[in-house]
Amino acid sequence: MAGKVFFSVSMSLDGFSAPESMEGMLATPEQRDRNPRLKRWTAQWMELQAWIFPQRFFRQNLHLGDDGEEGRDNDIVRETFERTGASIMGKRMFDLGEQAWPEEAPFHTPVFVVTHQRRDPWERPGGTTFHFVNDGIHSALGQARDVAGDRDVRISGGSATILAYLNAGLVDEFSIALSPVLFGAGTRLFDGVDASRVALEPIRSEASSRATHLSYVVHSR
Amino acid sequence: MAGKVFFSVSMSLDGFSAPESMEGMLATPEQRDRNPRLKRWTAQWMELQAWIFPQRFFRQNLHLGDDGEEGRDNDIVRETFERTGASIMGKRMFDLGEQAWPEEAPFHTPVFVVTHQRRDPWERPGGTTFHFVNDGIHSALGQARDVAGDRDVRISGGSATILAYLNAGLVDEFSIALSPVLFGAGTRLFDGVDASRVALEPIRSEASSRATHLSYVVHSR
Repeated sequence: MAGKVFFSVSMSLDGFSAPESMEGMLATPEQRDRNPRLKRWTAQWMELQAWIFPQRFFRQNLHLGDDGEEGRDNDIVRETFERTGASIMGKRMFDLGEQAWPEEAPFHTPVFVVTHQRRDPWERPGGTTFHFVNDGIHSALGQARDVAGDRDVRISGGSATILAYLNAGLVDEFSIALSPVLFGAGTRLFDGVDASRVALEPIRSEASSRATHLSYVVHSR
Repeated sequence: MAGKVFFSVSMSLDGFSAPESMEGMLATPEQRDRNPRLKRWTAQWMELQAWIFPQRFFRQNLHLGDDGEEGRDNDIVRETFERTGASIMGKRMFDLGEQAWPEEAPFHTPVFVVTHQRRDPWERPGGTTFHFVNDGIHSALGQARDVAGDRDVRISGGSATILAYLNAGLVDEFSIALSPVLFGAGTRLFDGVDASRVALEPIRSEASSRATHLSYVVHSR
């Protein structure tokens, strides 16, 4: 049985999945302290993701520590990980992650990076191998399905990649961790959504003290 | 004891509280059927508000009928009505409502319309009186508090009026009925929010089959 195609992201109450663009803001921690825009970006990002950082599974998977919370939020992080047999991401997300992930990248499955850049597969310890796909989102999805087996394919991000799959009718369902924060500006998760094609059926709404977890099945109109 | 200042609106998952501007689209039902933009506006509005239309309290209050649902959604509509001792709205919302409300307007309390237009109070059967306030949002709030007693003051809308109160630090709490729909374009509820001033504390998240009802207390940063 083929798995599903899904995405799962954190979103601010006003619809942003990331603070204002980081273009040109990548810097060392010392530079960051002297750059107020980058400081604000980091503070907003931390607020958006505040629900996930304390979770035990998240912390173990990123080698941040063996401590952490074990409630429903933690279960949701683990369930999202366990259902995923392969991931797809855009080039910008990969570039940011390449700098941020530990050597043992946190996917532990094949990851397909949609990019114009040609590059040999990049194998990391722990089972993550990045494959660079140069012929578009359908090809990346086909390759991801092949390796995922009966597990699901996760469109990891960023928003532009998620929207490309959503508007192409290729997403079966998605989950949003709605964080209690307003951004006012930044990257809107659903910017450019083809609302005339995408209809939603709510399948779960579950609140923790830190976020409201919403899940929807996607239908065509 | 003074009441609270709150707002309560429906919002699409991508953050819109109304479809694209209706400017120039007001029309008779016959014209509406021939105007695809207006038809789309109406269809989107109906989807956004789909959770509230079937509710018994809502239908009775707008004289749409004595039938309707009586579950948790209906309780929320009634509770929102019962806590409200006075309402505040912008001129555009009033203009739309003046054409749409039944003669017995659905507020049954004083309503303060923030506007540059000078006009005598307009009393409707059933206890609604519209007062036209020409000296700004603080004045309207003061007058609304005076008549609301220990009940709450509701900022009814539209979004621009809600945002003016929110950014001025005058809103104590708010509720959003998050509808399972994507708009892609329209009026964003939180467009222009001063994110550097407004912090949110989630106090309720309650899902029905039709919407997720989210409530937050507003704090200053």
